Amino acid sequence: MSDVSAVKAALKSQVIETPSWGYGNSGTRFKVFAQPGVPRNPFEKLADAAQVHAHTGVAPKVSLHIPWDRVEDYTALTRYAEELGLRVGAINSNVFQDEDFKLGSVTHPDPKVRRKATDHLLECVDIMDATGSPDLKLWFSDGTNYPGQDDIAGRQDRLAEALAEVYERLGHDQRMLLEYKLFEPAFYTTDVPDWGTSYAHCLKLGPKAQVVVDTGHHAPGTNIEFIVAFLLREGKLGAFDFNSRFYADDDLMAGAADPFQLFRIMHEVVKNGGLKSETGVNFMLDQCHNIEAKIPAVIRSVTNVQEATAKALLIDAEALAAAQLSGDVLAANGVLMDAFNTDVRPLLAAVREELGLAPDPFAAYLASGNQERIAADRVGGEQAGWGA
Amino acid sequence: MSDVSAVKAALKSQVIETPSWGYGNSGTRFKVFAQPGVPRNPFEKLADAAQVHAHTGVAPKVSLHIPWDRVEDYTALTRYAEELGLRVGAINSNVFQDEDFKLGSVTHPDPKVRRKATDHLLECVDIMDATGSPDLKLWFSDGTNYPGQDDIAGRQDRLAEALAEVYERLGHDQRMLLEYKLFEPAFYTTDVPDWGTSYAHCLKLGPKAQVVVDTGHHAPGTNIEFIVAFLLREGKLGAFDFNSRFYADDDLMAGAADPFQLFRIMHEVVKNGGLKSETGVNFMLDQCHNIEAKIPAVIRSVTNVQEATAKALLIDAEALAAAQLSGDVLAANGVLMDAFNTDVRPLLAAVREELGLAPDPFAAYLASGNQERIAADRVGGEQAGWGA
Amino acid sequence: MSDVSAVKAALKSQVIETPSWGYGNSGTRFKVFAQPGVPRNPFEKLADAAQVHAHTGVAPKVSLHIPWDRVEDYTALTRYAEELGLRVGAINSNVFQDEDFKLGSVTHPDPKVRRKATDHLLECVDIMDATGSPDLKLWFSDGTNYPGQDDIAGRQDRLAEALAEVYERLGHDQRMLLEYKLFEPAFYTTDVPDWGTSYAHCLKLGPKAQVVVDTGHHAPGTNIEFIVAFLLREGKLGAFDFNSRFYADDDLMAGAADPFQLFRIMHEVVKNGGLKSETGVNFMLDQCHNIEAKIPAVIRSVTNVQEATAKALLIDAEALAAAQLSGDVLAANGVLMDAFNTDVRPLLAAVREELGLAPDPFAAYLASGNQERIAADRVGGEQAGWGA
Amino acid sequence: MSDVSAVKAALKSQVIETPSWGYGNSGTRFKVFAQPGVPRNPFEKLADAAQVHAHTGVAPKVSLHIPWDRVEDYTALTRYAEELGLRVGAINSNVFQDEDFKLGSVTHPDPKVRRKATDHLLECVDIMDATGSPDLKLWFSDGTNYPGQDDIAGRQDRLAEALAEVYERLGHDQRMLLEYKLFEPAFYTTDVPDWGTSYAHCLKLGPKAQVVVDTGHHAPGTNIEFIVAFLLREGKLGAFDFNSRFYADDDLMAGAADPFQLFRIMHEVVKNGGLKSETGVNFMLDQCHNIEAKIPAVIRSVTNVQEATAKALLIDAEALAAAQLSGDVLAANGVLMDAFNTDVRPLLAAVREELGLAPDPFAAYLASGNQERIAADRVGGEQAGWGA
Repeated sequence: MSDVSAVKAALKSQVIETPSWGYGNSGTRFKVFAQPGVPRNPFEKLADAAQVHAHTGVAPKVSLHIPWDRVEDYTALTRYAEELGLRVGAINSNVFQDEDFKLGSVTHPDPKVRRKATDHLLECVDIMDATGSPDLKLWFSDGTNYPGQDDIAGRQDRLAEALAEVYERLGHDQRMLLEYKLFEPAFYTTDVPDWGTSYAHCLKLGPKAQVVVDTGHHAPGTNIEFIVAFLLREGKLGAFDFNSRFYADDDLMAGAADPFQLFRIMHEVVKNGGLKSETGVNFMLDQCHNIEAKIPAVIRSVTNVQEATAKALLIDAEALAAAQLSGDVLAANGVLMDAFNTDVRPLLAAVREELGLAPDPFAAYLASGNQERIAADRVGGEQAGWGA
Repeated sequence: MSDVSAVKAALKSQVIETPSWGYGNSGTRFKVFAQPGVPRNPFEKLADAAQVHAHTGVAPKVSLHIPWDRVEDYTALTRYAEELGLRVGAINSNVFQDEDFKLGSVTHPDPKVRRKATDHLLECVDIMDATGSPDLKLWFSDGTNYPGQDDIAGRQDRLAEALAEVYERLGHDQRMLLEYKLFEPAFYTTDVPDWGTSYAHCLKLGPKAQVVVDTGHHAPGTNIEFIVAFLLREGKLGAFDFNSRFYADDDLMAGAADPFQLFRIMHEVVKNGGLKSETGVNFMLDQCHNIEAKIPAVIRSVTNVQEATAKALLIDAEALAAAQLSGDVLAANGVLMDAFNTDVRPLLAAVREELGLAPDPFAAYLASGNQERIAADRVGGEQAGWGA
Repeated sequence: MSDVSAVKAALKSQVIETPSWGYGNSGTRFKVFAQPGVPRNPFEKLADAAQVHAHTGVAPKVSLHIPWDRVEDYTALTRYAEELGLRVGAINSNVFQDEDFKLGSVTHPDPKVRRKATDHLLECVDIMDATGSPDLKLWFSDGTNYPGQDDIAGRQDRLAEALAEVYERLGHDQRMLLEYKLFEPAFYTTDVPDWGTSYAHCLKLGPKAQVVVDTGHHAPGTNIEFIVAFLLREGKLGAFDFNSRFYADDDLMAGAADPFQLFRIMHEVVKNGGLKSETGVNFMLDQCHNIEAKIPAVIRSVTNVQEATAKALLIDAEALAAAQLSGDVLAANGVLMDAFNTDVRPLLAAVREELGLAPDPFAAYLASGNQERIAADRVGGEQAGWGA
Repeated sequence: MSDVSAVKAALKSQVIETPSWGYGNSGTRFKVFAQPGVPRNPFEKLADAAQVHAHTGVAPKVSLHIPWDRVEDYTALTRYAEELGLRVGAINSNVFQDEDFKLGSVTHPDPKVRRKATDHLLECVDIMDATGSPDLKLWFSDGTNYPGQDDIAGRQDRLAEALAEVYERLGHDQRMLLEYKLFEPAFYTTDVPDWGTSYAHCLKLGPKAQVVVDTGHHAPGTNIEFIVAFLLREGKLGAFDFNSRFYADDDLMAGAADPFQLFRIMHEVVKNGGLKSETGVNFMLDQCHNIEAKIPAVIRSVTNVQEATAKALLIDAEALAAAQLSGDVLAANGVLMDAFNTDVRPLLAAVREELGLAPDPFAAYLASGNQERIAADRVGGEQAGWGA
């Protein structure tokens, strides 16, 4: 895309959805370190998300997590979001923190537990209705820890049954986004461990069911951009959960561990039409900011995704196609690297200034005094936490 | 399956197919070490396979590889196999060793190369007709080494087109078995890298297309038995390529690296009906015996698969289901481990004696003098090699 | 070791140390599921450990974790252990759960934090003095999450300084055992990530410093038995932390994920003199029983280690050496597999009966009524938890 | 290093050594694809290396591989190199392609084979004497494929013995560089599998023995820059073998798979004094150009290493240290990323122009006509190949 104004337009139109839980405390099984100023309720989380949007201009949507973000009055919450210039994004179900779900939720051997889990998923669709959320995002921690613990194929039957019931409940403009994950918290089998499993279920469910690619949820060596290209070709890529990892599901800031990988992913997105709004790909973040300040970390993640997108947009598509067609391996690789090696920060600064924003969102946020303000204001009460 | 006679019957009816190339020389990119007595043509490979069948009683089928096993007269080859008590198993295509295939075969950017590759696949169906082989096994080394080298989604289009043409050519009782592999020889993308990709193509092709699970072709940490259970549930598990690995696609003897994994795989096979002949799962070996003697290594691999199968058959299915249903993790795991910890060698010795065979095929083969005989006889000529 | 009585004697003399925290609640970052009957203080943990020893006969030592097992009066705790037939094993330091340690403990950039961390390690030596514990076990979660976060080499300097100070404090019969771990909770660098780092520090410290091999702390594909053999050859293997894993540091029961690997490890132990008490290898468990009942899970882990040890002892060492020397790959592998395929449960049952114990410790414990007793008795109070 | 002239000076003084075998044909176990113009003898390989040096200005040294580069008259070869503006770099031994080395070389159970292997290593020192090479680079493919195949600790004894004999033979200014590798071609154990093993042997040998870090030789998830920092701190980093990989030892062009990792490695090099010539770190390439044109691929690899080095030199070390000291995770990470995100191609173009070279070595080489020239000239004869 050699036309700079087209590149800028594409960058202005990209929407990156941030997760409410990314503003709360999080940690590892060893320790959750608390931070000053962390929100104490869904309204404060929205206020933090609004800061990210105010400084980046591309983050108007916020994912909610139920029950972490359960409120009495969803209309009030939605109205508050709108006042902040935000709208409610995906509703994330949580069927992994109730004592009943120790051995599974929708795949549990006990039909009573499955009923409870499915009812929670249906409640999430109610919340979608109440908030205008278009996406039901499903992640199941379901699985087993030991060989023999449960019947692998039987659990697929139970999963399919629950998904079908929830799919039926979806409204016309609502989607089901099915996430997969290699492992954790289950350590032997996971019931939706890979894109193939998610894809197979979505295919049977119908067009409103699509796959979520969480960039931290793969086995070592998995080529994520291949999956992205494949799913886009099939019309089955519903969303990203962006984050980054060196080892397992580390949930570090997007682009922090392997910016070249993020660029290659965005290249497949651009190449295969995934940036067009009609394709419906939801660019979400799903991260844990364990030791770093949360709002600035989300801002950096957003700008990292933007930088990867900008580089992907700068690829000389014609030159690339010509080199590929002629079998010139080094030339084709060179076209890609040429875009990756470009410093796109000036371009993004220009885009922001055209939007009436400061050129460097990270610096602007730090200079705004908001971090000190929330640390002073949000004293007392219970801090929101990952899993709280 | 508590009934010993039923277990024995199941073990007697299992068929393990051995690969013609497993009898030839093989190695790594660093060196192929030659061995005395290695066959010099397809007929001698069949003679070696007949030794394995003679001592194990369960290996009457032999996979061929084209062009490595190309002969003038396939009727003569088939008749020779029958004289040896064998029949021709899967026909394996080879579209990775011609200079034209440097950048791909059916996914190559150049339509002339794709035509050549597809023609080779069609030739393999001709050979199926001539030999009575029921299975066309397709493994594509196609992929890229560098980011940007080719269009990932475009290669899927080309792949789908070639597969469709070949699928149309298949006869009523012929299947297409599509193998996947994470990497090697391609080092950035592989065009069929995982079971999901193979499954998605097979689904579109139709019921005669099924997935091959090669136990050495996964990313670290992949739960292979999950894939096996999933594909059996979908009716899409066509075959195994058994071998074992500690690192990458090491192609060691089946059961040598992780006998517990092989047992867990066979448990899913037994549990989900995969041992029944009507399910059509082809239990093939696909290994490289680089430093060990070849015929004895194949015999050990066959008996390793049998031992894993025997243990899986000995699982107390009722007790397992009861423990699973009640959520007793340790009891369920205990039922599985009880079978795994059983020494099944006496049971298999009894099975063999009932078949009129020596109880220990490995020892019996070594005592037979065959190894010395072929070393003395097969002098001169060109030894068959992996890739030769 | 063909002499059965020698094998039995070796099995009777092996001591497996169990961890106090293995009896408490544990979980993942997503959820800790509580269990009935879980101990509420160090004394109740010892009572649980005593159950394991009573039924297995080989688990008289218990590792403590400070501050989780901090008590007013260590003499009373030690005396209580003795009354139960137990003794205090390794003292485990904990410098990862205080707010000050968010960015490190002994490697923290701030010298005040380092001082606090080192003081805690010195306190642990005081507790060793008070309890008669011979081993100071050090695991540092220290590391960084992001490239650039801190100075990798500088952190090594700080680590070396702290270790030297603590080493100086050790008494004549006290050892420092330094554990390594690839990752978690740090996600970019870990300050002691591999055996080489631990070994290099121990070498400089002196003979009282030795390496701990935790079987769950390696990169995928790492050959653990190689490390064991290497460290034994160097006189630097201090201890094991046994557990098992399919993916990361899953902390499943020892032998549950890969019993063949555990056998290969024990083969290197036996082969290289590690089973002799004078070698000083401490066979510890370090596991989390997240979803399974805790005392039975520890019992099964102990018996899994015993089974692997028994199989290793049954290897025909002379036949193995002869096959190795002659370069007969299949024969050498066959000698090893012959031992692994043996069902050693009858042998271990005989060993237990000679010790006056029930032949099946797991069944005997379940039949003892202890589990129901503690569930009824231990009501109220705060359950001990992993990290609590 | 904020001073641009100092950065430029550092970039001009860096020496990148290229491998003679990188100019020959190479491939995988599946196929070696030949290319036109490939050298047919060591002299032609030197001519190709001279092209790389002529266009980059930083590649005056060439690694040789014995016996692939064995010649009658090493003085003539050395003189030819000098005429081309080159000098001989490391002498690489090869004890993996002789039939005798099927089960090992210096670790083989048979002392006659060990003698032969050690004699080859001593011959390599003779060649060092003859060519003025300062470095003996040792990589051993030695290992085993199957559990039980050989005695792990015994092989370490044999390795230590051979290394000691060769170390004694080294002259005053000669070094031994000991490479490690996780696996391949051995698939169960490798005798020098990790940096710890190499380090432990080098430590015992003495100051002339140092470790080689091949960037493709690690388990998934290994933090290579940690190893680099650790070895530099210990004075034991002798050299790099640069290349890149997505999966195993893929031997792709340096910087092609993870340019951010290469930058992080170079940051540790710069930070810990490894760029200073007195530290003695040898920056070698060790790659296989299987499908891409060889000389251009080496040029791109050299410039990739230069770009990573330039970015590392541009890191604001004071700002980084300040952020690290204050525990500001995001600021510290930001300083690093600021350098990485900089487009250093203009800086390197300026450096080259100051050296009297074309600003873009890749383009300049392609425009030079050399590729067409060698393709036309080098007809007939036997092409040099990886392993030939």
